[in-house]
Amino acid sequence: MELLTTNNVWMMVCTALVFFMHLGFAFLEIGLTRQKNTINILFKNIFIITVGLLLYCLVGFNLMYPGFAEGSSGIFGFAGFGLDSPLTAEGALDLTYNEGYTYWTDFLFQGMFAATAATIVSGAVAERMKIVPFMIFTIVYVGFVYPIAGSWKWGGGFLDTLETPFYDFAGSSLVHSVGGWAALVAVWLLGSRIGKFKDGKPQAIPGHNIPLATAGVIILWLGWFGFNGGSVLSADPSLTSLTLVTTCLAAAAGGVVAMLVSTVMFKNLDLTMFLNGILGGLVGITAGADQMSPTDAILIGAIAGAIIVFAVSFIDKIKLDDPVGAIAVHLICGIWGTLAVGIFGALAGMDQFISQLTGVGAYAVFCIVTSFIIIFALKKTMGIRVSEKEELEGLDGHEHGMDAYPDFRMNEH
Amino acid sequence: MELLTTNNVWMMVCTALVFFMHLGFAFLEIGLTRQKNTINILFKNIFIITVGLLLYCLVGFNLMYPGFAEGSSGIFGFAGFGLDSPLTAEGALDLTYNEGYTYWTDFLFQGMFAATAATIVSGAVAERMKIVPFMIFTIVYVGFVYPIAGSWKWGGGFLDTLETPFYDFAGSSLVHSVGGWAALVAVWLLGSRIGKFKDGKPQAIPGHNIPLATAGVIILWLGWFGFNGGSVLSADPSLTSLTLVTTCLAAAAGGVVAMLVSTVMFKNLDLTMFLNGILGGLVGITAGADQMSPTDAILIGAIAGAIIVFAVSFIDKIKLDDPVGAIAVHLICGIWGTLAVGIFGALAGMDQFISQLTGVGAYAVFCIVTSFIIIFALKKTMGIRVSEKEELEGLDGHEHGMDAYPDFRMNEH
Amino acid sequence: MELLTTNNVWMMVCTALVFFMHLGFAFLEIGLTRQKNTINILFKNIFIITVGLLLYCLVGFNLMYPGFAEGSSGIFGFAGFGLDSPLTAEGALDLTYNEGYTYWTDFLFQGMFAATAATIVSGAVAERMKIVPFMIFTIVYVGFVYPIAGSWKWGGGFLDTLETPFYDFAGSSLVHSVGGWAALVAVWLLGSRIGKFKDGKPQAIPGHNIPLATAGVIILWLGWFGFNGGSVLSADPSLTSLTLVTTCLAAAAGGVVAMLVSTVMFKNLDLTMFLNGILGGLVGITAGADQMSPTDAILIGAIAGAIIVFAVSFIDKIKLDDPVGAIAVHLICGIWGTLAVGIFGALAGMDQFISQLTGVGAYAVFCIVTSFIIIFALKKTMGIRVSEKEELEGLDGHEHGMDAYPDFRMNEH
Repeated sequence: MELLTTNNVWMMVCTALVFFMHLGFAFLEIGLTRQKNTINILFKNIFIITVGLLLYCLVGFNLMYPGFAEGSSGIFGFAGFGLDSPLTAEGALDLTYNEGYTYWTDFLFQGMFAATAATIVSGAVAERMKIVPFMIFTIVYVGFVYPIAGSWKWGGGFLDTLETPFYDFAGSSLVHSVGGWAALVAVWLLGSRIGKFKDGKPQAIPGHNIPLATAGVIILWLGWFGFNGGSVLSADPSLTSLTLVTTCLAAAAGGVVAMLVSTVMFKNLDLTMFLNGILGGLVGITAGADQMSPTDAILIGAIAGAIIVFAVSFIDKIKLDDPVGAIAVHLICGIWGTLAVGIFGALAGMDQFISQLTGVGAYAVFCIVTSFIIIFALKKTMGIRVSEKEELEGLDGHEHGMDAYPDFRMNEH
Repeated sequence: MELLTTNNVWMMVCTALVFFMHLGFAFLEIGLTRQKNTINILFKNIFIITVGLLLYCLVGFNLMYPGFAEGSSGIFGFAGFGLDSPLTAEGALDLTYNEGYTYWTDFLFQGMFAATAATIVSGAVAERMKIVPFMIFTIVYVGFVYPIAGSWKWGGGFLDTLETPFYDFAGSSLVHSVGGWAALVAVWLLGSRIGKFKDGKPQAIPGHNIPLATAGVIILWLGWFGFNGGSVLSADPSLTSLTLVTTCLAAAAGGVVAMLVSTVMFKNLDLTMFLNGILGGLVGITAGADQMSPTDAILIGAIAGAIIVFAVSFIDKIKLDDPVGAIAVHLICGIWGTLAVGIFGALAGMDQFISQLTGVGAYAVFCIVTSFIIIFALKKTMGIRVSEKEELEGLDGHEHGMDAYPDFRMNEH
Repeated sequence: MELLTTNNVWMMVCTALVFFMHLGFAFLEIGLTRQKNTINILFKNIFIITVGLLLYCLVGFNLMYPGFAEGSSGIFGFAGFGLDSPLTAEGALDLTYNEGYTYWTDFLFQGMFAATAATIVSGAVAERMKIVPFMIFTIVYVGFVYPIAGSWKWGGGFLDTLETPFYDFAGSSLVHSVGGWAALVAVWLLGSRIGKFKDGKPQAIPGHNIPLATAGVIILWLGWFGFNGGSVLSADPSLTSLTLVTTCLAAAAGGVVAMLVSTVMFKNLDLTMFLNGILGGLVGITAGADQMSPTDAILIGAIAGAIIVFAVSFIDKIKLDDPVGAIAVHLICGIWGTLAVGIFGALAGMDQFISQLTGVGAYAVFCIVTSFIIIFALKKTMGIRVSEKEELEGLDGHEHGMDAYPDFRMNEH
């Protein structure tokens, strides 16, 4: 009972920290885009948290943890609508549910994760996607695609029952690449922002509020204390504290290496790349944060930091317009982190690496197909892209009738 | 001892989260008003936290928890000035004080609550109230009115000893409506801002920094993890985690419903209403967060969300000028949440509903009378409203000799 | 085991809160300076966190906690490169390391402290110091000077083994004055910003974003819950909760007194002085936060608040240009707080006061000498000051090729 109470306190703290990541995402996304689309991005983020949580209560939690029956394919299961807390004979909450947390904490912690996947997409499609189709996409993706994908591993599905089980501690694949694949598909179907490519060359479209973008990254790093620390699913002193150490060292290494590589390549001390390197390191360590030594963590983070710089350039080169670098950070570093579990740390080995590849492939197929179907259907029916006039003037006035900073004078863009 | 330690850790974490709400209030209030009054609002918020805490140490804590004697009327008691920690025979802190927290944690957690009431008023009177009378009001209201009001229930006073005791888990009435009633009185005595009503019609005066307003709401939601979660007064796993779930679901439902209703009514996707809906849901669930099922919580939040939209319109219609929607959020949803305890959840019933009505009435009378006396006296003596020139040019330059954003060019308003 | 788990949870929460202080510092420093140097300051802050943590992993932790041998001088020790977690015979983490935390938590909590010292310097040298020499200074100061200085007390060195041991609970000296002395030396070697002194008179150079500066102070205060609360090194209910109470009361008293004194002296309600008073109170209580009664804490904070106002004026008068008041807050209040341990609270007495003076003197000598050597060497080799053109146009464009707010129109400065 004492231990459950302590474990549950830790899990509630982590839940709060993961919730707070939504401010991190919001600040990062608005900071790296133009002021004329700020309200729109904030609206999407608030929509994602609120609707995401309600959907997770209605269907998501029971899609993600369906309790796959013996002999099930482990691909799809559903334990019914709504929440159904286990009770003792006396009608109190059954505290034997888990030694690490109560039923309610379980739901809320997982619910806070669910919204993250759609938030990743929000940043990638910023400044040009219509709000209503984005809202529809969010409902389907957070409500159904994410929890089904999650059930394959965390719900005990087929990736969890491979001979050498696929491993994804806190979601390099289950959260970040699930969001990242959809971001990739959405960006591709949506096309680039007006002015992003001139004569085939990518043009920098500077973000309008770098202090808030920086704050966003620090808040996300803070939130990752809960994202990874809570994924231990108890307050186990060894595992939680090791996880925080590997998480922070990978973040630091990712940032420093991205900063060094970009300084060598582009000859200026680019703050945005520094920040994205930190995020890359965080996403990279997420799949194996509890399995790594500090040295492993620094290496994984450092490689993620280097990947970020090249990935951002590469995505520019193939003419995909991802205003906040979501694909590089969440998809590419998410894949890297997932594979790294087979290369570094306690689980390293060829069998594990193949299982990790299997997982990456399974999520690629499922997420590309589902997000393509959803977004393509929206494109062919209601359209997904705002008018040229609206894009040039900004989505804030057109979609929301509001201005983010009405007292300030702005430059024309 | 282990359990006390764990309980106390949770209570300290919650204390920190409630403290952090003051940044949420500050961001929300400045974000929804004009830049020329930003310093003034920030100054008031910083004043409220610092002075509020010192006053709570000097008199408030012992006014709120006086230890009403048997047979006392339970209306007013005072246990003496300053803090007086219970000691063991050996002179150490007596840990048998409470199984959920130490004496120090008790003081600090409650002290963080105390300042909230005045902060609610701060937003409502923004952009036109003189700073010195506001400071005097704060001292009296936080130092005396709030703790006396609180003693009636949380201090074991007459509302706690009704046959069917009045119930207010975390302060829909004791905190939010206590602030809300004073906001109502202050707004009425103060009059509306120049330009708010033209030919009897309310004019929108847009807030100057919607990203910070949005951040404020997310921070407030985060803070509510501590506000409600800590009101369990221990780390009891069932109650704390249920409370976090009901709190978050009500917030989400409040936001979504306010967004839907306002979209239907005004045909645009209004971010401010979305945000106020979240706050309305949070205030609404606060009185019964530990007594509700998830479904109850969603209903209470959803109704609060609808209330917000109509309340904001109604307050405009009766020509009260509340720049940040404090009356709708804290007073009207505070009343709703208090009554909801008699309608939904474990305590629902006619007796409880009548007790809840009794409590609402008692706070209405006490807070209206005291805040009227304080503010009316200030109005008749030193005046409460800045000069027209100061209001037009902004309070920042006149009262503080500072500018919030001196490097930025502003539009004239 | 239950107790270790609880203690460790508290220490991890505190670690997260101290990490979050870096956002507080970043907001405070950019808020109180001009927009044209914002990217530069943010870059430095991100550099300090990431590089600081990696260095603390590589050498710092083992310089600070070298395990001084019996008979050692207690001035310098080194336990080897990298982290070396203690293991049980079975290869698991040895949980008998400490009853308050695991080895990993110990490293991370202390690592979060390490970066703070350099951050203090960052603010003081803002708007005119070249970035590369600052980065070199950071590496040497965070990597070597800070941990060696720390070892003298927290590592069990000579200040800890005085007959009446020097006392510095959470680092008024070990963290704040160590940063403050370097800030003083750096400001002196660097010279004042162009335009700061005209005809020998200090000119106000207003900060560009007071809302973020205010947010920074609130975040720092929040972070101090972890900074001081975690310095108990366990979740001991009496000590942790007392520490939070003294910390918050000192902060409040510092703010209120600084506000009152500056209002009397300068006849306006200066928000910046209010904020610096809070920080002064926090730094002041830090050395003895676990040894003071609430009354002591209020007195220590109040005196710190008064000190701040006079110190800021004095530093102006001797023509040192410290844009964010770092010397007044961290050095002067750091010294005050250290000495206050010998005047107030459980340890007060002449012997203690002399030990406190000894400690202040030791840190003064060591930090002045080392920071002078580092910064003077940098000045004579690569130069430490940007060109006049760069200073006038801002460091953001020249050093980073970025603009913090490209969409906004700015006033010329």
